Amino acid sequence: MEPGKLRSVGASVAAVLPAGGSGERLGSATPKQFCALLGRPLISYTVRALERINWISDIVVVVSLENIETMKSIIEKYGHKRITVVEGGMTRHRSIFNGLKIFPESKLSSCPLQKPEVVIIHDAVRPFVEEDILLKVVLAAKEHGCSDYDLDYGTECLHLALKYCKTNAKLIEGSPDLWKVTYKRDLYAAESIIKDNLSQQVCVTTDMKEDAVQLGFLLHETLKNEVKQAKGKSVFLCKNDNRLQNIFLGQCYNFICINAKKSDIKETQQLVDILENARISVLHPVVLISVHLNVSENMSFSSGMEELAGIKEFAKEVKKKHILVYGLLIHYNKDDPKLQETINSAAAIISALIKDRNPELIGQLLVA
Amino acid sequence: MEPGKLRSVGASVAAVLPAGGSGERLGSATPKQFCALLGRPLISYTVRALERINWISDIVVVVSLENIETMKSIIEKYGHKRITVVEGGMTRHRSIFNGLKIFPESKLSSCPLQKPEVVIIHDAVRPFVEEDILLKVVLAAKEHGCSDYDLDYGTECLHLALKYCKTNAKLIEGSPDLWKVTYKRDLYAAESIIKDNLSQQVCVTTDMKEDAVQLGFLLHETLKNEVKQAKGKSVFLCKNDNRLQNIFLGQCYNFICINAKKSDIKETQQLVDILENARISVLHPVVLISVHLNVSENMSFSSGMEELAGIKEFAKEVKKKHILVYGLLIHYNKDDPKLQETINSAAAIISALIKDRNPELIGQLLVA
Repeated sequence: MEPGKLRSVGASVAAVLPAGGSGERLGSATPKQFCALLGRPLISYTVRALERINWISDIVVVVSLENIETMKSIIEKYGHKRITVVEGGMTRHRSIFNGLKIFPESKLSSCPLQKPEVVIIHDAVRPFVEEDILLKVVLAAKEHGCSDYDLDYGTECLHLALKYCKTNAKLIEGSPDLWKVTYKRDLYAAESIIKDNLSQQVCVTTDMKEDAVQLGFLLHETLKNEVKQAKGKSVFLCKNDNRLQNIFLGQCYNFICINAKKSDIKETQQLVDILENARISVLHPVVLISVHLNVSENMSFSSGMEELAGIKEFAKEVKKKHILVYGLLIHYNKDDPKLQETINSAAAIISALIKDRNPELIGQLLVA
Repeated sequence: MEPGKLRSVGASVAAVLPAGGSGERLGSATPKQFCALLGRPLISYTVRALERINWISDIVVVVSLENIETMKSIIEKYGHKRITVVEGGMTRHRSIFNGLKIFPESKLSSCPLQKPEVVIIHDAVRPFVEEDILLKVVLAAKEHGCSDYDLDYGTECLHLALKYCKTNAKLIEGSPDLWKVTYKRDLYAAESIIKDNLSQQVCVTTDMKEDAVQLGFLLHETLKNEVKQAKGKSVFLCKNDNRLQNIFLGQCYNFICINAKKSDIKETQQLVDILENARISVLHPVVLISVHLNVSENMSFSSGMEELAGIKEFAKEVKKKHILVYGLLIHYNKDDPKLQETINSAAAIISALIKDRNPELIGQLLVA
């Protein structure tokens, strides 16, 4: 977000997330806001979508009594900040009211929350909300106040906000991204969208050895073409490059580590340590593909396979940290006329692993 | 469907599928009815959903002029029967009208179609329609005719049907399965639902060798528990069993072939031939997991790996027939205290392969 936009908010803003629904239409025992997408509850995605917006000062999540502890553990586990958990009421309206009334009318030393000028009320089951639409909502709320039109044609939430909190509100046209997770099919769609988003960036790391750098370059070029078609971007860099931090800030969740020695996973191990220290895998599972070069045709697949057991155990351990490690053996001979074919095959396997993020296939050694 | 139900239709029924939409909201160049799900166009799924109902005598698909050839090639490729392709009009209403007017008022020798008593008008982008809801529609149409209520509150299609075709119609409450593919997220959801449906049945085949039968039994038991949780069912049988035909009729799309010899894919090859002859893979990609036993611990992974290249080439060939072959090596020693652990690992890998149906990972040799 550009600084100009940030200034233009010019109001204290908080958000209330009603998350007390029972998810009856989903046909599942778990209320939909707590259903797992890639292992993480839906509500955590929605919280994160609001939390990353720095002009939202406080986020209030309203859940039913029996889910308060679950919600607190989610906040703890995924490191969410600026969140207050509040017990809901018998109806959605009462829940929103409970969320709104925790903001004190005047500043109290005992309460860390301040009464905001604008409160965004956002469904917990709409995880793909973008900053620009929220900005429109806040600016319109500031500019227009609450009109009769909104009271007549908006949802009742607007009425509630006005009546009980003297907080302004207005009806704003939404975007298709704002859709609500209601049915089981919506969970499927949400998981696919998340996987799609996570596949947009790929980081290839190599050491400085000639073969590894050349292979890294070829893989990077081939992947870039593949990923470009999906409107994403790919990044290539050498290990220990100072760009690595930018990659992390850019929220890259896919790493290809080209190991110098065929049967050595030391480079992969080092990358795991870096990823772990940077806490990259807290919110999303990271895919890490450990590439091993097989330079001699005669050595065939067999030698070095002994180390597969090693990769498998390693991958099992690292999975606990939410990092999914897969092995990939590439026959690399820069004079091989079939080299590009091999690289294409490798890129296709890499893309498939990144897209599926399948935790059951970790530790396997695939062959390009 | 029970015979009683079939008798109770007691009317000649046809279906008209308006499929002329441009798919603007999808944000794609391809109209959504022609978007591929697991490689097959959405419209083919909808056509199949109607085609499998034996009391629907004719299915009329209405497409825009530029898509007539595409539609005909889809009918050819997927072997659809009882289909007539008709050119659409400028609006959805004109398209439906074009679809309806091909039924002659009186029997003509030159026209193979007969005027039906009931015409079902079904959106081409609602692929998950079930027989029971269509039966309700047809019965209600027969019983009630077209009421004023329907004309006032139903969609305009009802009006059209009455005005131009003197065909009765009534508004019936739909089910959540009837949802319409509109946005890109709906394509994601549809693909996941199709994959889910295809994962419900698994067929394990073995030869009569002791180890293979024992392993087959263990795998079957473990998979049954896994699949049961997903409310599906699993089937176990020996090869050349006469139940194999029933499996095909039951539309099983997942096969696990336990090969007697570790490095031999003869049994897998035979199963591919059977699958091909039975044309199982015409409508959906078939997953075939070629399991190889590694009975001796000392042999380790390496020996037999030489044959991986063989499996890879084989899988590439068979993929053209829409059969996805994956290799799975299982260390089998019936006295190994870790045997159940290995079996669980194999079952998890099998389930993952079946669920993802990933065409890029074919020919890989995974290790349980």
